[in-house]
Amino acid sequence: MFEVIGERINTSRKKVQEAVANRDADYIVDDVKKQQEAGAAYIDVNAGARIGHETEDMKWLLDTIQPVVSIPLALDSPDPAVLEMAFGMVSTEPMINSISLEKERFDAMMPFLEGKACKIIALCMDDAGMPSSAADIIARADTLVKELSGIGIPVSSMYVDPLVQPISTDNNKGNMVLDAVRGIKSNYPEIHITGGLSNISYGLPQRKIINRTFVALMMDAGMDSAIIDPLDEKIMATIKTADMLLGNDNFCGNYLKGVRSGAIEA
Amino acid sequence: MFEVIGERINTSRKKVQEAVANRDADYIVDDVKKQQEAGAAYIDVNAGARIGHETEDMKWLLDTIQPVVSIPLALDSPDPAVLEMAFGMVSTEPMINSISLEKERFDAMMPFLEGKACKIIALCMDDAGMPSSAADIIARADTLVKELSGIGIPVSSMYVDPLVQPISTDNNKGNMVLDAVRGIKSNYPEIHITGGLSNISYGLPQRKIINRTFVALMMDAGMDSAIIDPLDEKIMATIKTADMLLGNDNFCGNYLKGVRSGAIEA
Repeated sequence: MFEVIGERINTSRKKVQEAVANRDADYIVDDVKKQQEAGAAYIDVNAGARIGHETEDMKWLLDTIQPVVSIPLALDSPDPAVLEMAFGMVSTEPMINSISLEKERFDAMMPFLEGKACKIIALCMDDAGMPSSAADIIARADTLVKELSGIGIPVSSMYVDPLVQPISTDNNKGNMVLDAVRGIKSNYPEIHITGGLSNISYGLPQRKIINRTFVALMMDAGMDSAIIDPLDEKIMATIKTADMLLGNDNFCGNYLKGVRSGAIEA
Repeated sequence: MFEVIGERINTSRKKVQEAVANRDADYIVDDVKKQQEAGAAYIDVNAGARIGHETEDMKWLLDTIQPVVSIPLALDSPDPAVLEMAFGMVSTEPMINSISLEKERFDAMMPFLEGKACKIIALCMDDAGMPSSAADIIARADTLVKELSGIGIPVSSMYVDPLVQPISTDNNKGNMVLDAVRGIKSNYPEIHITGGLSNISYGLPQRKIINRTFVALMMDAGMDSAIIDPLDEKIMATIKTADMLLGNDNFCGNYLKGVRSGAIEA
């Protein structure tokens, strides 16, 4: 079953930043409840946008969110000290967002991750920048798997983000990442593939139809998780429909539930 | 580039049957012009529903349609005599819809097809009924390719229909046909894959979201044609978007054209 990582609690979003600045717990509680009801498997929490306030903002957000949701959180920060504090506050095994092969982030994150029970988002990014081919993405995933395995993280806890790039810059960017996902899943059947999708439509109009058509293609290739807005009803309907079509919905139960609730419309 | 075979001119549709019975050329002309404008690559013409009138109805339809469209026709009949008459009337190389491995249809169609310059839809149907596995579909396609090659039809003129079956009866029916399409395209890179899609959603509510999500998955697997209603704007928008995402739309030209015309909306 596909796992949606709800992306809305991020202080780079204006309304969230205002709510955090004003310690408006009602706004945050309402938002995360809606994300959970819409089918999120994780709530991502990112408090990075108010410079100098990340630790206290993250602490307040976790204090606010934890009591009202039953799903686990994705702790989203580049700062191991913030993550260490956050990790100590959560009651359910969290997801850590994220490690990459960029030397500075990699060196900071590895000691934090060692010995922790958590899921981990691993970005196929290194100091040379974005990957340039399917083989490049697959090679970076191999390195991430090798390094994370080396500190005891099981492959089934790894969520590799192959880094979706804009189709407007090169009409092969879709096939590149689809081929990479197939390659990674073939090498590591137990691994998860996640990531944002909206980069695919960067620079083009009517972006949402591109994003939701692309998620179906990515699911066919093996993506089983994505970092998206669970309140975007159309992409959620596409995900539930594709999950059914790909054999992951016994007796079409989730699909039919979605139709009955009004979440899925033709 | 994906080829849509426009399915609307079929006397089993009530309004078309009325128009044909009344020799209402305006209705037919208007419909086929709209199908062409919407991006159909072929106009399917089926005059089979008025028993005893197929030959004269087909002749009238071809006389009515041919002068007003520039795209080729798909001549849709199980009767070689009707097809022979129709074949003699068309000015552009047509598609023949269809042959199958059912003995009666196969034996009737092979002599008609021999020596003809045409595209041919080849259904993976035999006297045992619908195929039961991906391997079964692939084996039937192999037989069709072998037989049609034997009478001089090039693989690039074959449009194999793997026969989409309802996901409501078995949640593996999607993967079954997707795997079959991948197998057939791997065996015969120049072959085309076509077919109707709406069987996938048989027995379920809100069918159109299932059909259009499935076409994206089928395109990812290698389907490059479908028999659909080109006036269904949402499925056409999904097809254009998926075609772009799969690398078949240089500089996103068709997608952008679709957005400008209002045919593609988020």
